[in-house]
Amino acid sequence: MKFEPKTTDFKKKVEQSFYRQKFMELISAKLIDIKPGFCEIQIPYDPTLTQQHDFFHAGIISTIADNAAGYAGFSLMEENSSILTVEFKLNLISPGDGELLIGRSNVLKNGRTLTICRSEVFIVKNGEEKLCAASQSTLIELKNKPDEK
Amino acid sequence: MKFEPKTTDFKKKVEQSFYRQKFMELISAKLIDIKPGFCEIQIPYDPTLTQQHDFFHAGIISTIADNAAGYAGFSLMEENSSILTVEFKLNLISPGDGELLIGRSNVLKNGRTLTICRSEVFIVKNGEEKLCAASQSTLIELKNKPDEK
Amino acid sequence: MKFEPKTTDFKKKVEQSFYRQKFMELISAKLIDIKPGFCEIQIPYDPTLTQQHDFFHAGIISTIADNAAGYAGFSLMEENSSILTVEFKLNLISPGDGELLIGRSNVLKNGRTLTICRSEVFIVKNGEEKLCAASQSTLIELKNKPDEK
Amino acid sequence: MKFEPKTTDFKKKVEQSFYRQKFMELISAKLIDIKPGFCEIQIPYDPTLTQQHDFFHAGIISTIADNAAGYAGFSLMEENSSILTVEFKLNLISPGDGELLIGRSNVLKNGRTLTICRSEVFIVKNGEEKLCAASQSTLIELKNKPDEK
Repeated sequence: MKFEPKTTDFKKKVEQSFYRQKFMELISAKLIDIKPGFCEIQIPYDPTLTQQHDFFHAGIISTIADNAAGYAGFSLMEENSSILTVEFKLNLISPGDGELLIGRSNVLKNGRTLTICRSEVFIVKNGEEKLCAASQSTLIELKNKPDEK
Repeated sequence: MKFEPKTTDFKKKVEQSFYRQKFMELISAKLIDIKPGFCEIQIPYDPTLTQQHDFFHAGIISTIADNAAGYAGFSLMEENSSILTVEFKLNLISPGDGELLIGRSNVLKNGRTLTICRSEVFIVKNGEEKLCAASQSTLIELKNKPDEK
Repeated sequence: MKFEPKTTDFKKKVEQSFYRQKFMELISAKLIDIKPGFCEIQIPYDPTLTQQHDFFHAGIISTIADNAAGYAGFSLMEENSSILTVEFKLNLISPGDGELLIGRSNVLKNGRTLTICRSEVFIVKNGEEKLCAASQSTLIELKNKPDEK
Repeated sequence: MKFEPKTTDFKKKVEQSFYRQKFMELISAKLIDIKPGFCEIQIPYDPTLTQQHDFFHAGIISTIADNAAGYAGFSLMEENSSILTVEFKLNLISPGDGELLIGRSNVLKNGRTLTICRSEVFIVKNGEEKLCAASQSTLIELKNKPDEK
């Protein structure tokens, strides 16, 4: 699907919001790509991000899926809008066993109030990508509520 | 609902698994209570766990909901079983604006292979609990696969 | 939880909307109970409603869960509002093997725009209720859009 | 993704199971296409299948999404296996206002026990397809349990 952004500086808006999230810094998440209706985030492996088998924790996998969806949606929103995740559903498909986690999300529908996205999370091991998780999210646009503190 | 644990030391098993997760240490999550088919986890506020408005990040809220569900389910599993989250769905209901996050989960059905749980996440502000998120999860029991590295 | 209805005739409003749905007639669904933030619907067994093993079809189980949620939410909405299901997630917990299906739903949160409900579906066999399915739904209130054709 | 069926007559197996479901007959659902890991189902408009605004009822939309997922997954299962839906999550994206409902589902992952699918439901109005709903499902393969009564 092809989407038209409603602001010219949607990239800057997304970047600023992304790096205002201190939790992204804690887990070394990086915003890799942002296009109208699309977002990619990456998180390199670190032992502090693991569950009991030393793989990426499901909480990290959820975080990357949810955040990619949020910013894919946010890329299409108006200048003075902020965004909230209403809900999401995530299937964990293979263990997060690898050196890098990649989250990619695409907008399915950008409605006046609600936006629906699908995300895929890939785990990279020895340079090879494998599907790790898949999610479907509902986001809400809060108009005239700029995304600042 | 009332459940019978299949091992006498289900509490020890849950505790050991919980504290083997390094991500729990990173975010200072604490296992507060574990009963057959029930689990409570708490995470105190810390600025490193926040999103762009300085509230608990949705990734932290997902983590506590998913982990509470996982250990509520794990409390009912056999001695040599490990557990994986198959999927979960989470509604974010109020902002994570407060000093403490509490996740509580109850098993709805403990089947031979699959276990279904419902979790609620509460945000505590000035000592008062408010519903912050609600989830529903599917877990799978992997028999003869002890939960160790 | 206890909710205050915003209209005095919320029961009548729900009943009229329920029986305007021709699909409810096709499957002989009955509105059994409606209170502020709660709804119960029943569907008696009929061979036309079955899947390949002669049990209630998952489509019927979804219908009763979704509709109970919709009317639990609708009971709390304003005079001139209509309601739409945004999304729901349903776990099928036991086969729909019995003579009657009961769907009950409770509102978890009634927000200004969105309402969150949890539903349980029970299958009655030889007079005994058993948990058959559990769902969690998001509904949206459309203000100044009366629920009529 | 490309999948290899485990039985040569997967099409026949799916067709026989589909038409054993009496509810499919009641709502005039037709199995249109079945390939390894893919299924398409169609339901023509009928006034008995409607909600209060004369559009396809959400229960019918759920049914087509869930059934398409089930048979997409079933196409990849072993000779003597049957299949159950564990759970699904569905977003309703546009009203079911049109003359035909089309459900298409693709397998995302076909594991040893669990299979994950994504479905899209389209509403056709004046010959034009529009995205009506999107779902994500988890299915379980029951081995040595042929899909018969």
